[in-house]
Amino acid sequence: MTAIGIYGSSGRMGRAIADQIAAEGATLAGGVDAGGDPTALARVADVLVDFSTPAALEAHLAIARAARTPIVIGTTGLTQAQHQAIDAAATEIAVLQTGNTSLGVTLLAQLVREAAARLGPDWDIEIVESHHRHKVDAPSGTAILLGEAAATGRGTTLSELRVDGRAGLTGARTEGTIGMASLRGGSIVGDHTVMFASEGERIELSHLAQDRSIFARGAVRAALWIAGQPAGRYRMGDVLGL
Amino acid sequence: MTAIGIYGSSGRMGRAIADQIAAEGATLAGGVDAGGDPTALARVADVLVDFSTPAALEAHLAIARAARTPIVIGTTGLTQAQHQAIDAAATEIAVLQTGNTSLGVTLLAQLVREAAARLGPDWDIEIVESHHRHKVDAPSGTAILLGEAAATGRGTTLSELRVDGRAGLTGARTEGTIGMASLRGGSIVGDHTVMFASEGERIELSHLAQDRSIFARGAVRAALWIAGQPAGRYRMGDVLGL
Amino acid sequence: MTAIGIYGSSGRMGRAIADQIAAEGATLAGGVDAGGDPTALARVADVLVDFSTPAALEAHLAIARAARTPIVIGTTGLTQAQHQAIDAAATEIAVLQTGNTSLGVTLLAQLVREAAARLGPDWDIEIVESHHRHKVDAPSGTAILLGEAAATGRGTTLSELRVDGRAGLTGARTEGTIGMASLRGGSIVGDHTVMFASEGERIELSHLAQDRSIFARGAVRAALWIAGQPAGRYRMGDVLGL
Amino acid sequence: MTAIGIYGSSGRMGRAIADQIAAEGATLAGGVDAGGDPTALARVADVLVDFSTPAALEAHLAIARAARTPIVIGTTGLTQAQHQAIDAAATEIAVLQTGNTSLGVTLLAQLVREAAARLGPDWDIEIVESHHRHKVDAPSGTAILLGEAAATGRGTTLSELRVDGRAGLTGARTEGTIGMASLRGGSIVGDHTVMFASEGERIELSHLAQDRSIFARGAVRAALWIAGQPAGRYRMGDVLGL
Repeated sequence: MTAIGIYGSSGRMGRAIADQIAAEGATLAGGVDAGGDPTALARVADVLVDFSTPAALEAHLAIARAARTPIVIGTTGLTQAQHQAIDAAATEIAVLQTGNTSLGVTLLAQLVREAAARLGPDWDIEIVESHHRHKVDAPSGTAILLGEAAATGRGTTLSELRVDGRAGLTGARTEGTIGMASLRGGSIVGDHTVMFASEGERIELSHLAQDRSIFARGAVRAALWIAGQPAGRYRMGDVLGL
Repeated sequence: MTAIGIYGSSGRMGRAIADQIAAEGATLAGGVDAGGDPTALARVADVLVDFSTPAALEAHLAIARAARTPIVIGTTGLTQAQHQAIDAAATEIAVLQTGNTSLGVTLLAQLVREAAARLGPDWDIEIVESHHRHKVDAPSGTAILLGEAAATGRGTTLSELRVDGRAGLTGARTEGTIGMASLRGGSIVGDHTVMFASEGERIELSHLAQDRSIFARGAVRAALWIAGQPAGRYRMGDVLGL
Repeated sequence: MTAIGIYGSSGRMGRAIADQIAAEGATLAGGVDAGGDPTALARVADVLVDFSTPAALEAHLAIARAARTPIVIGTTGLTQAQHQAIDAAATEIAVLQTGNTSLGVTLLAQLVREAAARLGPDWDIEIVESHHRHKVDAPSGTAILLGEAAATGRGTTLSELRVDGRAGLTGARTEGTIGMASLRGGSIVGDHTVMFASEGERIELSHLAQDRSIFARGAVRAALWIAGQPAGRYRMGDVLGL
Repeated sequence: MTAIGIYGSSGRMGRAIADQIAAEGATLAGGVDAGGDPTALARVADVLVDFSTPAALEAHLAIARAARTPIVIGTTGLTQAQHQAIDAAATEIAVLQTGNTSLGVTLLAQLVREAAARLGPDWDIEIVESHHRHKVDAPSGTAILLGEAAATGRGTTLSELRVDGRAGLTGARTEGTIGMASLRGGSIVGDHTVMFASEGERIELSHLAQDRSIFARGAVRAALWIAGQPAGRYRMGDVLGL
C-alpha cells in the first residue's frame, strides 16, 4: 500500500486528506507541521502532499528531491521564482502542482475547453457560480479557471474576453465575450455552470460540489497516481489521462 | 363567443394576440391602428386589449368608458396622471393594467412573495435571469418584478435590498439583501430563477419562457376574464384568482 | 432558554437534533433511550422531541400529557390507533406529528399545492427526484408528499393521477396525470423538482438538500415553536404559519 | 455561394431547411418531391440534402454518385442493405448519414463519451430528458444516443447497462448501470441532461432545444461542410472536427 506523508497536516486540508487516505486504499506515513521533521517524513513516505504555506515550498521541494520522493503541491499564490523551483525539482522527481484538486472540476475544465474550441463564435459563453454567504470575492477561483479553459479553447485569454457582473444599460452582448455572474447564499459549497448559447439551442456544463471532502479525495488520488510516475511536472488533468 | 377588439393591432404584440384568439375560443372583433376608428370598435367588441402607445391611453380609456367596454392595458411606462386616468375609468368599467401578461410569471411572483414572507431572514434571496444576446439592459423587467415580490414578502421595498452584478472584493453577503445576476446569450426568450438559500438547503422557483406567444396568450386570457367583471381596477393576479 | 428533551436520543436523528440545539438558541434538557427515564425528562423539559419507535409512542404520549409538556413526534408508519392516541393527547397538550421536518420541503409542498390549484389543467405536472445510490425505493417519500400536495391543489388524490417510471411506448400524455421520475447516483442527499409545463412556458419549483442536518434543524425549530402553543394537533406547516 | 438541393423538400424538415439556407450564406438549388426530377437537381446542386424516405434512398444515392454530388442523408430507420449502399456510394462521393443533425447534441454526445471514459466506475451515470406532451415513446432517441455515447466511453454497449423508468422497490443502484428517466409536459422541444454523480460531487452535461430550427440549421451546416470533402462516409461529428 502507498504511504502518503502530509506537509501542513494540521491545516483544514491536511486533516481532510488524512481522513480520506484509508478510504482510498492508502496508508498515512505521517504528518508534519511547524516543528515536525519534514526530512524524516520524506524518507519514509512513498509520496508527499504539501498543503502548508508558499513560504515553506522551496525547502519542501529540496527535501523531496533529496529523498527522491514524488510530491503533490496544493499551495497557491506562488511567485515566478517558486514556479521555477518546481520546474527545477521536476527534472529529478515527479511534481504535480494545482490550485484545484477536485477531479470533477478538472474534467469539467477540459470539457469546457473542447466545447469552446469546437463551437463557433455564434455560441455565446456565460459562466454562473453559486457559493455560501461567507465568500468575500466574486467570481470564484474555479469560475475563473473555467473561463480560462473556455478562452484557451477559443485561442485567446480570459482577460481579453471577460465581462463581470453585467448590470445597467449594457447594450447588446459583444460577440466573443465571456460573461461571469456570481450568486451568494446559505451554505452552498460551490456550483458552477458554463453555458454555451446559440440560436435555438444551449449546452450547459455544470459541476456541483456537495461537500469539501472532494478536494481532499482528489488530492489523495493525485498522490496515488504520481507515486508511480517518472520525473516531470504534472497537472491535475494528467491524473484523469486528459 | 367573446369578441375581442385590439388597439395597436399592427404592432408585434397586437399581431401575436390576433393569432391566439381563435385557439382560446374567442373571436376577433377587429383591430385598430393609426387611422382606424377606435370608437366603432369599442361598440362592437365585448372587451378591448390595448397594446398601442401610452400617448393614446387617455383617449382609449374615454372611448371604452363611453361604450362601457372592459379593457386590458398592456402599455407600460405610464405617468402618474395616466395611472389616475385608469383609476377614474375603473369607477365605471373593468380595467386591468399590467406590465407582464404571462400567467406563469404572474403566478411565480405570488409564490415568491409567499416564500419570502414565510422563510426567515436566514434564507438568502438571489435572482438570476437569462436572455438573448440582443437585450440591452440588465436585470430584466421580470427579474425586477420578482425582486419586488420578494421584497414585499419581507415587508420592504426592492430598492432597499437590491445588489446588482456582484463582482470583485464584495465582502461577505449582507443579510437581507437580494442579489441580481444576468446572463446573456443566443436566442434565450427569458429564464428566471429566484433562489432561497439557507444552511443545508435551498428552494429554487423558476419560470422558463420558450416563446413569446405566452404573453399574447396571457393577454387573451386576461381579456376573456375581465369581459365578465364589474367596474374596478384589476391586476394580472386576479385572472388567476390570487 | 427553552429546554428540549429527546426521546430516541441515541438514534441518528436523536444525535443530530442534540447537535443543532445550541445553534438554535435552546438547551438540551436530556436524552432518553432504552433504559432511561422518560417521565423524569418530561418534567424538566419545556418540550419533547420523539424520534424513538412507533412502539413507544403511546407510552410517550401518556407521559407528556401527564407532565403537560408539548411534544414533536417524528416517528412514521403509525397505525390508525396511534393517530387516535395523538388526537386524544392533543386535547390537553400541543402535539405536532410529521414525516418530514425540513422547513424547505414543508414550504415547497405549500407552494406546489397553490400552483396546482391556480394553474389550469393545460399545465402538466411532473416530479423528478434525485437521491444517493444506496436508496432502495423510488420515488422518494418526499416526492410522494409533493405529488399529494399537487393532487390536493387539483382537488383529487395522487393515487388517481400518478404515473411512475414512464418508459416504452407510452402513448401521448394523459391530461391531469402526475408523472414521477427518479434518478440515483453518488451521495446526493435529495433533490426534488416539481415541473408545471404548458404551451410555451414552464414553472419549476425545487428543493435541494445539501446535508441531513436540515431535518434535525427543522425538528428543533418545530420544538421551539410548539413550546408556546396551546393544546391541539399541529402540522409542520403551522411552524411556518402556512 | 454553395447551392443546396433538397430531396423531400415538401416535408417538415425539407421546408425548414429551405428556410435556413439564406441565413447560412448558401443558395437553394431547388427542391424535389414525388414527381420532381432528382437527376436534374443533382446536376445543378453543389450538394444534396435528403430528408425524403428510406424507400427512395438507393435511387438518390445512385443519382448523386452519377452526378458526383456530395449528399447529406437525414432519413433514419435504414436497413443493413441501405447502409451498404451508402458505403458503396462513399467510395466515389462524400456521404454523411445521421439521425440527429443538431450541432449541440452532436457535441454533447462527444463530451459525454469523454467524461464517461475519464471518470471511474464510482461515478454513476443517469440521463433525464423532457419532451412535449404529444411524444408517444420514452426515452427519446436523443437520450438513447447520449446513453450509447456514455456506454462507448465505458467500453461497452448501452443495452448491457440500461435501466429504464426506475420505480418501486428497486434495491440499491447497481454499479455501472445507466438510468434513464423521461418527463412529458407542455410544448417542451427537448431537454437532455447526462448526470455523473460520485461521492460529494456531480457533473451535469445538458442540451436544451428551444425550437426545431436547430435541426434544419445543423443540416445546412453539414451540407456546407461536406460540399468540400473528398469521397468517404462521414458522421455529424466530423462537421465539428470531433
